[in-house]
Amino acid sequence: MIIVMKRGAPQGLIDEVVAKIEHLGYRTHVSQGEERTIIGVIGDDRPIDPGKFAPIEGVERILPVLKPFKLASRDLHPPDSLVDVDGLTVGGNEIVIMAGPCAIENREQLLETAHAVKRSGATVLRGGAFKPRTSPYSFQGLRERGLELLAEARLETGLKVITEAMSPEQVKLVAEYADIIQLGARSMQSFELLRAAGESGLPVLLKRGLMATIEEWLMAAEYLLSVGNQRVILCERGIRTFEPLTRNTTDINAIPVVKELSHLPVILDPSHSTGKWEYVSAVACAAVAAGADGLLVEVHPRPEEALSDGAQSLRPERFATLVEQVRRVAQAVGREIAEPEWTSKTPA
Amino acid sequence: MIIVMKRGAPQGLIDEVVAKIEHLGYRTHVSQGEERTIIGVIGDDRPIDPGKFAPIEGVERILPVLKPFKLASRDLHPPDSLVDVDGLTVGGNEIVIMAGPCAIENREQLLETAHAVKRSGATVLRGGAFKPRTSPYSFQGLRERGLELLAEARLETGLKVITEAMSPEQVKLVAEYADIIQLGARSMQSFELLRAAGESGLPVLLKRGLMATIEEWLMAAEYLLSVGNQRVILCERGIRTFEPLTRNTTDINAIPVVKELSHLPVILDPSHSTGKWEYVSAVACAAVAAGADGLLVEVHPRPEEALSDGAQSLRPERFATLVEQVRRVAQAVGREIAEPEWTSKTPA
Amino acid sequence: MIIVMKRGAPQGLIDEVVAKIEHLGYRTHVSQGEERTIIGVIGDDRPIDPGKFAPIEGVERILPVLKPFKLASRDLHPPDSLVDVDGLTVGGNEIVIMAGPCAIENREQLLETAHAVKRSGATVLRGGAFKPRTSPYSFQGLRERGLELLAEARLETGLKVITEAMSPEQVKLVAEYADIIQLGARSMQSFELLRAAGESGLPVLLKRGLMATIEEWLMAAEYLLSVGNQRVILCERGIRTFEPLTRNTTDINAIPVVKELSHLPVILDPSHSTGKWEYVSAVACAAVAAGADGLLVEVHPRPEEALSDGAQSLRPERFATLVEQVRRVAQAVGREIAEPEWTSKTPA
Amino acid sequence: MIIVMKRGAPQGLIDEVVAKIEHLGYRTHVSQGEERTIIGVIGDDRPIDPGKFAPIEGVERILPVLKPFKLASRDLHPPDSLVDVDGLTVGGNEIVIMAGPCAIENREQLLETAHAVKRSGATVLRGGAFKPRTSPYSFQGLRERGLELLAEARLETGLKVITEAMSPEQVKLVAEYADIIQLGARSMQSFELLRAAGESGLPVLLKRGLMATIEEWLMAAEYLLSVGNQRVILCERGIRTFEPLTRNTTDINAIPVVKELSHLPVILDPSHSTGKWEYVSAVACAAVAAGADGLLVEVHPRPEEALSDGAQSLRPERFATLVEQVRRVAQAVGREIAEPEWTSKTPA
Repeated sequence: MIIVMKRGAPQGLIDEVVAKIEHLGYRTHVSQGEERTIIGVIGDDRPIDPGKFAPIEGVERILPVLKPFKLASRDLHPPDSLVDVDGLTVGGNEIVIMAGPCAIENREQLLETAHAVKRSGATVLRGGAFKPRTSPYSFQGLRERGLELLAEARLETGLKVITEAMSPEQVKLVAEYADIIQLGARSMQSFELLRAAGESGLPVLLKRGLMATIEEWLMAAEYLLSVGNQRVILCERGIRTFEPLTRNTTDINAIPVVKELSHLPVILDPSHSTGKWEYVSAVACAAVAAGADGLLVEVHPRPEEALSDGAQSLRPERFATLVEQVRRVAQAVGREIAEPEWTSKTPA
Repeated sequence: MIIVMKRGAPQGLIDEVVAKIEHLGYRTHVSQGEERTIIGVIGDDRPIDPGKFAPIEGVERILPVLKPFKLASRDLHPPDSLVDVDGLTVGGNEIVIMAGPCAIENREQLLETAHAVKRSGATVLRGGAFKPRTSPYSFQGLRERGLELLAEARLETGLKVITEAMSPEQVKLVAEYADIIQLGARSMQSFELLRAAGESGLPVLLKRGLMATIEEWLMAAEYLLSVGNQRVILCERGIRTFEPLTRNTTDINAIPVVKELSHLPVILDPSHSTGKWEYVSAVACAAVAAGADGLLVEVHPRPEEALSDGAQSLRPERFATLVEQVRRVAQAVGREIAEPEWTSKTPA
Repeated sequence: MIIVMKRGAPQGLIDEVVAKIEHLGYRTHVSQGEERTIIGVIGDDRPIDPGKFAPIEGVERILPVLKPFKLASRDLHPPDSLVDVDGLTVGGNEIVIMAGPCAIENREQLLETAHAVKRSGATVLRGGAFKPRTSPYSFQGLRERGLELLAEARLETGLKVITEAMSPEQVKLVAEYADIIQLGARSMQSFELLRAAGESGLPVLLKRGLMATIEEWLMAAEYLLSVGNQRVILCERGIRTFEPLTRNTTDINAIPVVKELSHLPVILDPSHSTGKWEYVSAVACAAVAAGADGLLVEVHPRPEEALSDGAQSLRPERFATLVEQVRRVAQAVGREIAEPEWTSKTPA
Repeated sequence: MIIVMKRGAPQGLIDEVVAKIEHLGYRTHVSQGEERTIIGVIGDDRPIDPGKFAPIEGVERILPVLKPFKLASRDLHPPDSLVDVDGLTVGGNEIVIMAGPCAIENREQLLETAHAVKRSGATVLRGGAFKPRTSPYSFQGLRERGLELLAEARLETGLKVITEAMSPEQVKLVAEYADIIQLGARSMQSFELLRAAGESGLPVLLKRGLMATIEEWLMAAEYLLSVGNQRVILCERGIRTFEPLTRNTTDINAIPVVKELSHLPVILDPSHSTGKWEYVSAVACAAVAAGADGLLVEVHPRPEEALSDGAQSLRPERFATLVEQVRRVAQAVGREIAEPEWTSKTPA
């Protein structure tokens, strides 16, 4: 951390800041410039809230030097993390494709979709049982009944399953049924929920908040890691900008940025990041070309009947085409699509 | 809702959309333009998810005509709502000032601040017991012990108290101690939390999410209203933009916009909306000039020792000056600062 | 400027950076932290492009310490600048009100508006002759004929006049007719235009770009100041954000921020910053409460016939009410509305 | 265009709006809903400014149905446009790579870079002679001397050349030397400049403004097209968002969106859209995977000595690697890198 003093700050104020830093157990390094004095803090100052110094008279600005996350940082953990999901690896050379309906609506819809996405190359089935909806008048999900259907689909297809929990209480329930707990964009900074998900011990897929900086996203991952859960998968799903023609703006830059700053795997949800099925394939290919470790795609057998997110859901046959396009791009960057363990044994 | 068909969409597709709308129980109105056909939906279509029509072939765009909120809308409730907080009215002619520390740190800090803000003209004491913090390494609040101190401060000063709940479970605890439950910006779309807070029956102060549109904010209020809780206070606290010199951008436009669209009272938190104490007074005055019904201000006896948000906290004497400035602006727009009931009886 | 080296950067790379800085004529200050080495640059490094160091291997980040503007900075020019517009002062205790139509449409419209705004308390008449329009099919302005009408309105009313120039060539023409040259939001970083306007010697009103940071805005002012033109007036006109209900988001924080960083006067254009006449008065009052030195308001005798920006234009009688409201708020913060010199002599 | 009347708007006001539309030469279609009356405008209403109706009492909102651009629209020109640059085609099956230094600094730097990028597979040389710089104290370009060097590099290498013009006057000069005129992000809505560039008759590369919506970008293209210049190439270069870790946010969604809405070719500038050379290759590959027709990449032989944008410039050997990666991705999506005409004849 570097503290920049105001132009002409008197020595007394400078001494005050130095004393305060040293009182916190750090060493200081004072550098007298021509217009400003700057004070460097020596030591691991990540736990210090920079705001601590802001109210001191004479302080102009505080510049953090270290990134605030530690466990999520590649600095302290250089190799890529491989997240094991009951035998399936996320973050290795193979691209993992997760697909399924936005919301679980009924048994037929879920099983039909599960079989279809499996046939096309997905290894994980997504489907929401608890649905965060902007309107209290929209369909809110089948709740526990949805979880039961998800478990049935897993049993029938061999796919792993991922589903969202929106509160600490739901984490407990979801953990009984799912292979991966999904934390949604609106919950990225629900800290009680982060703690509960971390403590569940299950792999957690952490979506970036639609208003979250990459640093805040990695700090949310830090909550999960700091309670001892190493199995964290990051998921970019688009950020909110001024552009109205798409639901969100896919932050494709985030893929290489996260890969540089962190060892955690990162995947893309092109359905939410575009909001319109016409753009999903192009952006899915872009993500894999940019280095993403997987995709989370909304697929519905009849999008026009979907109770949620029909506009961005692919029909199964379009999803099949997407997987073939993504496969070619993956090979162009030296990677493969993850194949299910059952491939050679069980025909879908 | 208006559905715009693609240029040259064949009659069959138009008929399909019409049939689907009528199947949902609405009448339609088809208008054949020179380049596009448009289909109007007649009836209260708020419960229909526009996404329903997006995946139908031939549909280009869906334009909602009605705002999606009903209970929060001034359309259906023209007069201003007055929110009663145990005898104090929010939303009437009097400006309500809520002030106190970001986090409750200890008994002395809280009581000292409570007495100070009361002397200056606040009628509600704020103070966080459960703190949403970006970093798992930052101070997370005194939790229940903080709530006890808040109750003690209320007893001693007669101030009403407001504090945040971050999960459905915390709502129960907070409801035992507080006069107003605060829902923070990061929780604006934690729908389980909204439901729990709504059901508590207590007045709820709903902060706007830092990247929430005004419409989404009013939809979150709709969650509270739809479970039967009429006592909702909106609080603008700045939105996230590209401007880095302030913590957030105060959306001052939101004050008159909310006043036009909704009957709910709206206040401003200039501490978060600027992030720097130097700007708090100017922006507090601006809010009252623009029509805000109150202010939520962070005050700390020694900001440089604050465990949270020191940079944006006012010292008590600066807060006293702020109240005097705000009082003059309030009078210029024909309003007054709310006085506590005890004014004439109990000297502070 | 502070250069942060990557974790574990070898001494050779550190020496290379130091040598490079010293080669540019600066002294350095190396500070060895536990995880990173940081190198401080001593001296006025504003002219150094920080990007210079970014490509050097081993460099992680560059943190500027000084703001990049000098002539616009309050650091080097502590008192407020008073901008003289032919006898009218912008930036002093008096609030200056500029008003008039978005576009000059014809003689009658301009003169009728000029008389009306004068009667209500404006001292400067605005009106566009060269109009920047998003669509090539929209009305592009009367061009030189508009300037002639503006000059006529000045002669007839005694109001000062302000109008926009969109290219270096137009600056020459505008300078023959106007008292203040306006540079629009879309032109804030048209550097050839900035130079031409600066060299005209006339007062320049510099609107903030709709996605410009405050620092970039002050750097644009620096272009004007650096060619020797001291008469620069800043004008906040709203920034672009994700909020769709208003045309722009008024960055009310920018008022106190600019006042702290710079000595230049700053005014607000509430017509563009809201985009809807219903919100203009509330936001105009807010600006004055926050410390703005003036207002730029769109007024049209018949907004529904306006060739441009009708939605945000006030009718003359509503403008008169706005001025009365603003006057009361101005008095509440210890200021007055600027009166024209002719007040006591010439009845309007 | 659809005009939504306020709840309960009386018949008189509805009639007034209808009369006004019919007076403009359009037919209307009135639809009486349960809560609102809506009025549809029949005919090509693109030339009507929607703001025209906003100030009429009783009008709540105006919803445009047609996109405001015509010449740029795929609606009216379904096949892809192929832009011929003196024998090189932009917009066809072949990906065009444009590369070179941000600023032309001297003869050696430019020629060395030109030969290097040619060897690696570029067919167009970029280099700025007139530089838009945020600071008046930064290097502003070699101006006409830079253009002469560019012409020399073209003669020596056979590469086409592209360079930016910042004002109508510079267009004339640039047109004497360049094969493509570049209009920069800050100039996207400099309408006098757009007209001048359009009238030059040369191919124009139009960068998206960092604050421009896709619709505004296509409207700027419409200015070029409307003066009769068909050779327009769009260039996404990143938009401004709240994310501070990258200079801009690459709007990768914009690639498929533009391809759907318009027939014009679109390329990406990954150097500006990321701002950091480490991310350029990943994002360049992403763009091609998403369907971009080309790339514009900053290359400098010694980025640490660059007078501008060193942080985002690639060294020639890294650029060579980028082209190889992009080539594989191009093939994966069924495309090739454009080869220069001279390939078989003139060894580089």
